[in-house]
Amino acid sequence: MRSSLAFFFHPKSIAVIGASNRPGKLGHEILRNLLEGGFSGRVYPVNPKGGRIFGLKVYQTLDSLPESPDLALIVLPPAKAVEAFERCGRLGVKAAIIFSSGFSEVRNEELERRLVETCEKYGIRLLGPNCAGVINAHENLYATMEVRIAPGPVSMVAQSGALGGIILALCEKQGIGMSKFVSYGNACDIDESEVISYLAEDPETKVILVYLEGVKNGRKFLSALREAVRKKPVIVLKGGKTGSGSRAARSHTAALAGDNRIFQAVLRQAGAIQAENIEEMLDLAQVFLSYSHMHGNRVCIVTNSGGPAVVAADHCEEQGLKLPPPTQKLLEKLEFLPQYCPKSNPIDLTAEADGERYRKTLEAVIRSGEYDGILVIFVPPFFVDVVDTTQAVIETAWENRRTPMVACWTGTGVEKCIEMLREAGIPTYTTPQKAAKALKALWTRNKTQRKAGFGAGGGI
Amino acid sequence: MRSSLAFFFHPKSIAVIGASNRPGKLGHEILRNLLEGGFSGRVYPVNPKGGRIFGLKVYQTLDSLPESPDLALIVLPPAKAVEAFERCGRLGVKAAIIFSSGFSEVRNEELERRLVETCEKYGIRLLGPNCAGVINAHENLYATMEVRIAPGPVSMVAQSGALGGIILALCEKQGIGMSKFVSYGNACDIDESEVISYLAEDPETKVILVYLEGVKNGRKFLSALREAVRKKPVIVLKGGKTGSGSRAARSHTAALAGDNRIFQAVLRQAGAIQAENIEEMLDLAQVFLSYSHMHGNRVCIVTNSGGPAVVAADHCEEQGLKLPPPTQKLLEKLEFLPQYCPKSNPIDLTAEADGERYRKTLEAVIRSGEYDGILVIFVPPFFVDVVDTTQAVIETAWENRRTPMVACWTGTGVEKCIEMLREAGIPTYTTPQKAAKALKALWTRNKTQRKAGFGAGGGI
Repeated sequence: MRSSLAFFFHPKSIAVIGASNRPGKLGHEILRNLLEGGFSGRVYPVNPKGGRIFGLKVYQTLDSLPESPDLALIVLPPAKAVEAFERCGRLGVKAAIIFSSGFSEVRNEELERRLVETCEKYGIRLLGPNCAGVINAHENLYATMEVRIAPGPVSMVAQSGALGGIILALCEKQGIGMSKFVSYGNACDIDESEVISYLAEDPETKVILVYLEGVKNGRKFLSALREAVRKKPVIVLKGGKTGSGSRAARSHTAALAGDNRIFQAVLRQAGAIQAENIEEMLDLAQVFLSYSHMHGNRVCIVTNSGGPAVVAADHCEEQGLKLPPPTQKLLEKLEFLPQYCPKSNPIDLTAEADGERYRKTLEAVIRSGEYDGILVIFVPPFFVDVVDTTQAVIETAWENRRTPMVACWTGTGVEKCIEMLREAGIPTYTTPQKAAKALKALWTRNKTQRKAGFGAGGGI
Repeated sequence: MRSSLAFFFHPKSIAVIGASNRPGKLGHEILRNLLEGGFSGRVYPVNPKGGRIFGLKVYQTLDSLPESPDLALIVLPPAKAVEAFERCGRLGVKAAIIFSSGFSEVRNEELERRLVETCEKYGIRLLGPNCAGVINAHENLYATMEVRIAPGPVSMVAQSGALGGIILALCEKQGIGMSKFVSYGNACDIDESEVISYLAEDPETKVILVYLEGVKNGRKFLSALREAVRKKPVIVLKGGKTGSGSRAARSHTAALAGDNRIFQAVLRQAGAIQAENIEEMLDLAQVFLSYSHMHGNRVCIVTNSGGPAVVAADHCEEQGLKLPPPTQKLLEKLEFLPQYCPKSNPIDLTAEADGERYRKTLEAVIRSGEYDGILVIFVPPFFVDVVDTTQAVIETAWENRRTPMVACWTGTGVEKCIEMLREAGIPTYTTPQKAAKALKALWTRNKTQRKAGFGAGGGI
């Protein structure tokens, strides 16, 4: 009987095997992260030298612990890690993470075979080796050397610890919290599919980010992904798409990257959202924190500056979105706009537009029902009150939550306003391209949901 | 005889026609920007009301000025702007900028025809209408409502003022200075081609950025672009690439965006570097501030983390760059690296890599002569001294300036190091994709230079 993944996210007791009192050593820093993070369960440092670390008693052997811990964090060189993992299995430990590298990614397949045998023999579950561990921010569990992120609705599964760490750093910078973070490395027991299935059921996870380099069991992956996509947006960045990338993946996590065209088709078929680069994963996550999908692909661009709107129109069309001009009926509602404002979509309120002009225009556009989503652009001229304009856009978005609205705020002095918008739940980007891609992701998600037979429904 | 563009960049005297004493009015803010910017020539506010603004005497008519100014900044409604421009022409003013909109972009073609007639009749040159003016930061000339950027080696020609403003804001954020900035709007007299030709000859301009929506005279544009590309890198973002974008461009600057495929071919043929989005313009400019080109397309990735390197390898291959593995000879030089470090390119120094490991590896790679460029990645683990590592990379780059090196520094706590790298002249990006695109741009530039029969030569 194999243990559930729950022991990784909700352990009551944790052993740190290879705990060290030397700052800078992994066995020290992981223990420190765990304690400073505020883990509320019992923590048992293990090291043959004994003594005390951070005021905690250090156990000289695993057998001398007062209980069999739920989770073991193993911070030892490869051969010793394998032995420690076997002892964990024998003692009835439920789950373990091996952080160390030096396994199949450098052709030490034999060591990894022994890990798998231990899993099969005792039912203990293994994350790694060659991974960065686990976070459950909602329970102050930071069993990782990565940054301690604040709790929130995004979860991440990453084959690469460092890449996961980059996403964590971006989350922190953008004020986005995280629920679960799992770096699974060589995936010799727990793989991406199992974690994805777990997160699909996790009520604290609203959006799933996946970085993977290869998939050992394609059928299992497709089925896990399909099931997850029915429940929540899954955003995937695939490493090893090209010949060079896939050779690199081979020596990184021993991943067989596979035929990229097949893989892309699998992702598309399953309804996953594909990210083109690292930053884009979080750009796309942001939009799903506010909206579940977009009913159609008719987008209206409302702007105070022509050039950025032209570029936005290009990016929208490149993403397969449509920019139909307003009907005569809507144009009549927009008659309050000065005659010199271009109104054929993009609707250009021109540089002197204030909050009131944005508000009235956005309301008319939303109420017309002629558009499924709005891309609103603001490049502040020196003479316009940026906070007032931003506030008006926020209020309009809140009063009309069913029509997805994404913002592109860029130029001088917009930083504070971007924070305001994001705090208000309006997905906000610094380039028209990112905003267009966010709307495209909402539209992709709609198609998935329709296929799954779900009803529609937006809302910040 | 038409006046030279030099009067826009080196005027000795400027009239501000439509100067206003009311803060927030364009006629006030442009005068303020000019004075606060520290323009050293003579400034004449003009307004029928007379009085004083910022302590300066306001002239009631253009005819009452003590001299015929080199440059007139016209901040009046369309019809009045046309009249004022005619008076400028009659009085022998050399150059004028009309900021106001309300001309051909809203089908007021007749007004624009009159502007062209005045140019032809008096030889006066016109920038605009519907533009954001001119900056020559080296002479403290800020004849614009845009932000006052510090002097530097990048110049920009922008059909859209706001889009130019976004680039100015990005420059400021990244600590990149600007030489000339020209927003040319409806281009009824001076167009992109003429400005590009001017900047190509300008000794203070090292890189030219161009945002344009349409080109009225394709042959003239191609010839100006070709000539400029022979002298310095020209980075172009084209607005109106798609049907939607080109309709938007039509109502923005009355630009006829033309057939995009033809346009792309023209840019490629001329050897211009094409940017895919707004941010990318500056990302690519950055690399040319340090390196002129890359001899070939063989790139080595040196990293301390596997996942980002896999992604970087993908992006490099997508950009047409090659990642050949090191030869046996180079591998021997790399024998100091621990056995578990993957060395097949990407060369993965693994998480514990310190500055010394980076330095020795980079030196061996550069000296091998097996690579034309290097993409170095650093994702700081908590236990590594980020400043020490960054310093080692900077020193190695400086000691080996002929091989272009771009950096991707990302994750937690890299902000300060990114500044260090950029100050040291190492083009630095926060994603592997941006770094790969920068190397691609250097490689594109090499092909152009070879075609032009130039010798090679890199160097920070």
